[in-house]
Amino acid sequence: MQKNVTVAVDAMGGDNAPAEIVKGAVEAINEHKDLKVILVGDESVINRELASYSYNKDQMEVIHASEVITNNEHPVAAVRSKKDSSIVVAQRLVREGKADGFVSAGSTGAVLVGGQFIVGRIKGVERAPLAPLIPTTKGFSLLIDCGANVDARASHLVQFAKMGSIYMENILGRKNPTVAIVNVGAEEEKGNQLVKETMPLLKACDDINFIGSIEAREIPNGGADVIVCEAFTGNVILKLYEGVAMALLKKVKQGLMSTFRSKIGALLAKSALKKTLKEFDISRYGGAPMLGLNGLVVKSHGSSDATAIKTSIAQCITFARQDIPGKIREHIKDPKADEVEGKAHKKES
Amino acid sequence: MQKNVTVAVDAMGGDNAPAEIVKGAVEAINEHKDLKVILVGDESVINRELASYSYNKDQMEVIHASEVITNNEHPVAAVRSKKDSSIVVAQRLVREGKADGFVSAGSTGAVLVGGQFIVGRIKGVERAPLAPLIPTTKGFSLLIDCGANVDARASHLVQFAKMGSIYMENILGRKNPTVAIVNVGAEEEKGNQLVKETMPLLKACDDINFIGSIEAREIPNGGADVIVCEAFTGNVILKLYEGVAMALLKKVKQGLMSTFRSKIGALLAKSALKKTLKEFDISRYGGAPMLGLNGLVVKSHGSSDATAIKTSIAQCITFARQDIPGKIREHIKDPKADEVEGKAHKKES
Repeated sequence: MQKNVTVAVDAMGGDNAPAEIVKGAVEAINEHKDLKVILVGDESVINRELASYSYNKDQMEVIHASEVITNNEHPVAAVRSKKDSSIVVAQRLVREGKADGFVSAGSTGAVLVGGQFIVGRIKGVERAPLAPLIPTTKGFSLLIDCGANVDARASHLVQFAKMGSIYMENILGRKNPTVAIVNVGAEEEKGNQLVKETMPLLKACDDINFIGSIEAREIPNGGADVIVCEAFTGNVILKLYEGVAMALLKKVKQGLMSTFRSKIGALLAKSALKKTLKEFDISRYGGAPMLGLNGLVVKSHGSSDATAIKTSIAQCITFARQDIPGKIREHIKDPKADEVEGKAHKKES
Repeated sequence: MQKNVTVAVDAMGGDNAPAEIVKGAVEAINEHKDLKVILVGDESVINRELASYSYNKDQMEVIHASEVITNNEHPVAAVRSKKDSSIVVAQRLVREGKADGFVSAGSTGAVLVGGQFIVGRIKGVERAPLAPLIPTTKGFSLLIDCGANVDARASHLVQFAKMGSIYMENILGRKNPTVAIVNVGAEEEKGNQLVKETMPLLKACDDINFIGSIEAREIPNGGADVIVCEAFTGNVILKLYEGVAMALLKKVKQGLMSTFRSKIGALLAKSALKKTLKEFDISRYGGAPMLGLNGLVVKSHGSSDATAIKTSIAQCITFARQDIPGKIREHIKDPKADEVEGKAHKKES
């Protein structure tokens, strides 16, 4: 029999909390019999929501948290001062081993800060990246890092590449995923200081399928499965993806509505068009995992509905089943051990 | 009477050279009576192309250059070794004051390198940025820098902001253009080291309309007229713009072609849709100017047709007429003078 998995869910975070969060949690336990969900937040509010559903009571627990961290608060200050907030209380459950994973549609900043300082990093992991899936014409790729680690160093990017590969292979089933680093050109000599430093380190990794540089133009074409970059670049990519798509769809709509003839055309094409474009919707791919922690932290989109929450919870189940933290530990060795090994290699060659 | 303007044009650069380049040059002189074009490249080839047009011979000169720099060559090495290439010969004309501007659809790298080392920077300008126009839902914005200056410093970004403002106001007629710096969030404390260092310097500039940070999501919405960033980020923005747009349009096409009903709809909507989407085509906005040089260097898109070349030449005319180098000189003071002034300010406060 498979091991039971417990996921702590922030019932108070996101635009549609608590109704959609609670609904998503109920749907998750109804689908997965060996899952337990702990809903964290205002007990009376959560229980009121739960009252309208039927589900196995043994699979659901409610833990009270009296505070909520909002998007407008400074993340570090909020995590420090609001000890009884749903985010802090739920992440403490992961830290204490009472939950395998944590899902929140609330403040990204607070989730990231809590992930680093409450859940805590796996030994040897220098930085914990946020790694959302982005849509491509071939399906999707993992963009790592879009998190809080601006001004990352080369050694961080190497760890991102390894953790991203492990996630893509084990959670998303992409065999031997290709890994590329975001660069301003494909040529060897191109790049900023960070990319030039990182490139030989990535080439030297024999546990990833590194294919070299990727220009931003090739990302939407699915040019690589795992797209490695530091968080400033990652944030620009993620947000520009959304921005360009929204602006272009606005233009498509304008075009379709501009003449009588085109309006009739639009009426006929609408449902087919909607279906295809949904595949390219960045909010569709559930939550962004924060990797390298002692447990899985999933940041679900602020506008998450019940289905998105259910998907994020399912990610935690696979994560625990596949023992991703264990696999990361195997590949991310203690940096000092790496150094010693590096020297040994040099002597041999 | 207005001063005559002379523009040197690389007849050998780009996918459609020399036919479309020569055609664009002829169209430009037929439209502008006080313009002279110097076509640089293989004399016999150029003259063969010119033979099929009628134009005022006094406005056209051909200068022979026996070599061509291709996109596959290393820019620095190519500019150094190919002294008789069309790019090097034409840029020397600008340096020697025989031309006011230079237009090329050839190797971006060689154009940038030649701009810095042959045409040369205005005294006080630390780096010469490449500043293409990008389409937005409101029209277009200037993205500065997308050039070769990766790992720029804060003082460079401040100069980019000033030069971008001058260009946007004087060449493109955007009065008191808004200036923003690309950042990972709108909050004061957000940003990497470079953005944090640059922010107070931009705030202190009283000759630009600085409005603070811009998130990448807001760029396609026309969130600012002048978008300031270092070249690595700028390159990612420019290329992702193109990539996402292409991928999404592929999806739109797929959607429209997916059912019988939608195919009929597509037929009816096609022409209206094409017209609107053309407004969002990144290659439509002529050439990208390289600013801060002793003359205007315009890098036209590799796939430029005659119209694109004509537009790029027209940019050079306005640039010379408006005396942009003079205006840049006024706003970009000698760095040493700035330092002295900075100290004086500190003493006062």
